[in-house]
Amino acid sequence: MDLTKIRVIGFDADDTLWINEPYYRETEKKFCELFCDFASENLINNKLLEIEIQNIELYGFGTKAFMLSLIETALEITGNKITQKQIGEIIRLGKEQIQRKNEIFPDTETVLKELSGKYRLIVATKGDLLDQERKLKNSGLLKYFHHIEIMSNKNTENYNQLLQHLDIQPVEFLMIGNSIKSDILPVLELGANAIHIPFHTTWVYEDVVEDKIPDSNYIMVGSIREVLKILNI
Amino acid sequence: MDLTKIRVIGFDADDTLWINEPYYRETEKKFCELFCDFASENLINNKLLEIEIQNIELYGFGTKAFMLSLIETALEITGNKITQKQIGEIIRLGKEQIQRKNEIFPDTETVLKELSGKYRLIVATKGDLLDQERKLKNSGLLKYFHHIEIMSNKNTENYNQLLQHLDIQPVEFLMIGNSIKSDILPVLELGANAIHIPFHTTWVYEDVVEDKIPDSNYIMVGSIREVLKILNI
Repeated sequence: MDLTKIRVIGFDADDTLWINEPYYRETEKKFCELFCDFASENLINNKLLEIEIQNIELYGFGTKAFMLSLIETALEITGNKITQKQIGEIIRLGKEQIQRKNEIFPDTETVLKELSGKYRLIVATKGDLLDQERKLKNSGLLKYFHHIEIMSNKNTENYNQLLQHLDIQPVEFLMIGNSIKSDILPVLELGANAIHIPFHTTWVYEDVVEDKIPDSNYIMVGSIREVLKILNI
Repeated sequence: MDLTKIRVIGFDADDTLWINEPYYRETEKKFCELFCDFASENLINNKLLEIEIQNIELYGFGTKAFMLSLIETALEITGNKITQKQIGEIIRLGKEQIQRKNEIFPDTETVLKELSGKYRLIVATKGDLLDQERKLKNSGLLKYFHHIEIMSNKNTENYNQLLQHLDIQPVEFLMIGNSIKSDILPVLELGANAIHIPFHTTWVYEDVVEDKIPDSNYIMVGSIREVLKILNI
């Protein structure tokens, strides 16, 4: 990684700047409790994951897609025995999750503040457009970012378009995020740089076997604060 | 409207470049048929609209939001009598709508082709991020546009940000679209220009009393082709 060339730093949002995935896990837990008469938690979660992955092409990512997949999973596991109350409860759980207070990681703001004078910072996140805009707006962090990119999917093609839009070369870009699949691999493929900050809870869909990651242009750190050390700040 | 100053033309997408709203009406019709034992079409549609408007703040716009509001409406109108099959049918109808072939208006491409050499063209649309990207990609029209902006809501604040992002003054911007609420009024408020092309089916939520529209900087035309005449092409 040639640090001297980096001009723009992209931050993933969910589980990089703030907590997100555990809220999905909590909703899933409550969902499983609703249907514990029909199947075990493991079987329900497996069926849900199967349906979510089937639906990604049509629905994309985010809470509304999640809610629709929860309802579809409920239909499948209950046979003909789902109740009005259970469907209503799924919708309530989903709305509750959308409205949760956003918990920003303690070091997020310090790090953004330090970096914002020295680099152009951007957010590159996927998920629901409105959800992500709301979270960013409420976070108080918008002032640190030059650009917000909400992507339907974080693949090489979309990152390439982003770099073109920012009018920078891959070597001038550093992406920081918790998902190897979405934040690291597509960025490295373009010849850009990436820092991986693992988060304790990652959606199985985002999991990638670690030995697939090329060595160069890539560093893994334990927390967002360590980014400052790597960039000699 | 001072045509000589215009440098960037923004096009709304749904019901301006291609057909969209009638597909919602068709799904609603099938939805009402599913529940005709419980209420009349008018009452069901009224309840649906009420729930959709309540949910805009949480869900935003687009097909996934629509599907979730359909399910919630079904719960309300059936009392405790909704069946597994009906919920499954709502999900099937929603997925069918997402997958519909996009019907582009016959004159859309001619007009974009003519204008693209003379102005910077952009798309400014709201709705579901993935849906809109997919429709644009499949439309074959992407090559005419310098920039695609998918907005969570088309209000004055968001248009203002868009103009800043494009680095242009309001007088240099012309917006073309079918919704007075989303494409015309917020744009005129900024001092930019707008052409309204009414479409035969408009969602009630987008309706605005016509006498609210200021006279200056605003023209209504009957079809997208007439835009060329107005711009003297």
